[in-house]
Amino acid sequence: MGGKWITIEGIGGSGKSTQVQMLEKYFLNSKGLEVILTKEPGGTNLGVELRKILVKDLEMKPEYLSELFLFEADRHETVKKIVEPNVSKGNIVISDRGIDGSIAYQGFGRGLPIPLINNLTALATDNRQPDLTILVDIDPIIAQERITKRGGDEFDKFDLEEHKFQEKVREGFLYSARINTNRVKIVDGSNSTDKIHQDIINIIEESI
Amino acid sequence: MGGKWITIEGIGGSGKSTQVQMLEKYFLNSKGLEVILTKEPGGTNLGVELRKILVKDLEMKPEYLSELFLFEADRHETVKKIVEPNVSKGNIVISDRGIDGSIAYQGFGRGLPIPLINNLTALATDNRQPDLTILVDIDPIIAQERITKRGGDEFDKFDLEEHKFQEKVREGFLYSARINTNRVKIVDGSNSTDKIHQDIINIIEESI
Repeated sequence: MGGKWITIEGIGGSGKSTQVQMLEKYFLNSKGLEVILTKEPGGTNLGVELRKILVKDLEMKPEYLSELFLFEADRHETVKKIVEPNVSKGNIVISDRGIDGSIAYQGFGRGLPIPLINNLTALATDNRQPDLTILVDIDPIIAQERITKRGGDEFDKFDLEEHKFQEKVREGFLYSARINTNRVKIVDGSNSTDKIHQDIINIIEESI
Repeated sequence: MGGKWITIEGIGGSGKSTQVQMLEKYFLNSKGLEVILTKEPGGTNLGVELRKILVKDLEMKPEYLSELFLFEADRHETVKKIVEPNVSKGNIVISDRGIDGSIAYQGFGRGLPIPLINNLTALATDNRQPDLTILVDIDPIIAQERITKRGGDEFDKFDLEEHKFQEKVREGFLYSARINTNRVKIVDGSNSTDKIHQDIINIIEESI
């Protein structure tokens, strides 16, 4: 197996970040591969600053298109500085969220046109797509319960949006999975952490 | 005269910021109009943060396309939150730099394709263009002497680029003026501050 770019997608509270950690161990321990963890937004020096603006700063209310431009800037940095150099060296890059997140959040959530998002994302990624995307699908009601239980200061501005917004975002992820059946595989996020992990491993062993 | 969006362009050290201040007084005192001063990048809440990244942070070295995405995010904020609401109320918006800056710096300076920049800018501005643009044209050698003399902490990352870069940027501004002859008017920045101001007033009284 050569280098791969794998993205893990899902709404806040889906458990995707836990799965990213478990997947890292799988590649390191069972496969002896070098694994680089990253996230969108926030995987690069520029991304760290953009993440503050996009996800953490409650006072900052950019226009939706400005928000999209910032996500694309973050994405371009990630592809150029993390994905391309590492995948070409045979490493595994696992990203907590990726290109489908913009379809889900900026498209279905915010209402920006999908073709516009696709065009800007194609530009930002140089037409590169992840080799595999795992969508941890979950009912937003369960997800919100988990976020409330988790507490702490790990909040994400998008998780504070109303239930209807989260429903639309979930629909957006499922839409992206439907039109990218070869790349995006869905796992049931209402299962136990271990069961989800096993489902993900099965998908990886079958598909890449 | 209804509301207008006027941009003042030029390389660092061209004296454009001084001209923005003088022009504000002209509209306020001679015309009794409400004037809003802004700048690109940095005219909005989001812009203030982006300006730090784009202009002030010497450690931050974004990819050129990421940089362009950030300028377009800043621009979209400016158009939606400052230009549109104020011009529609009959006010004068004067911006220290604007859309031609991306052609000059990201296009001619960084080497990004001009059609790409035009497409993203059309998107960011909703196809709106300034009613008038004044290009304060100056030889980069004179401009750099002024920057050195000025000193202080008002540095701009782009002014630290080598002479050849500044030459290309100047060429970019002149290119933009050539293909937008109706909108962009050139004044000679090697003249005295007062002479440049008078030239700008003459242009304004003739053209808008």
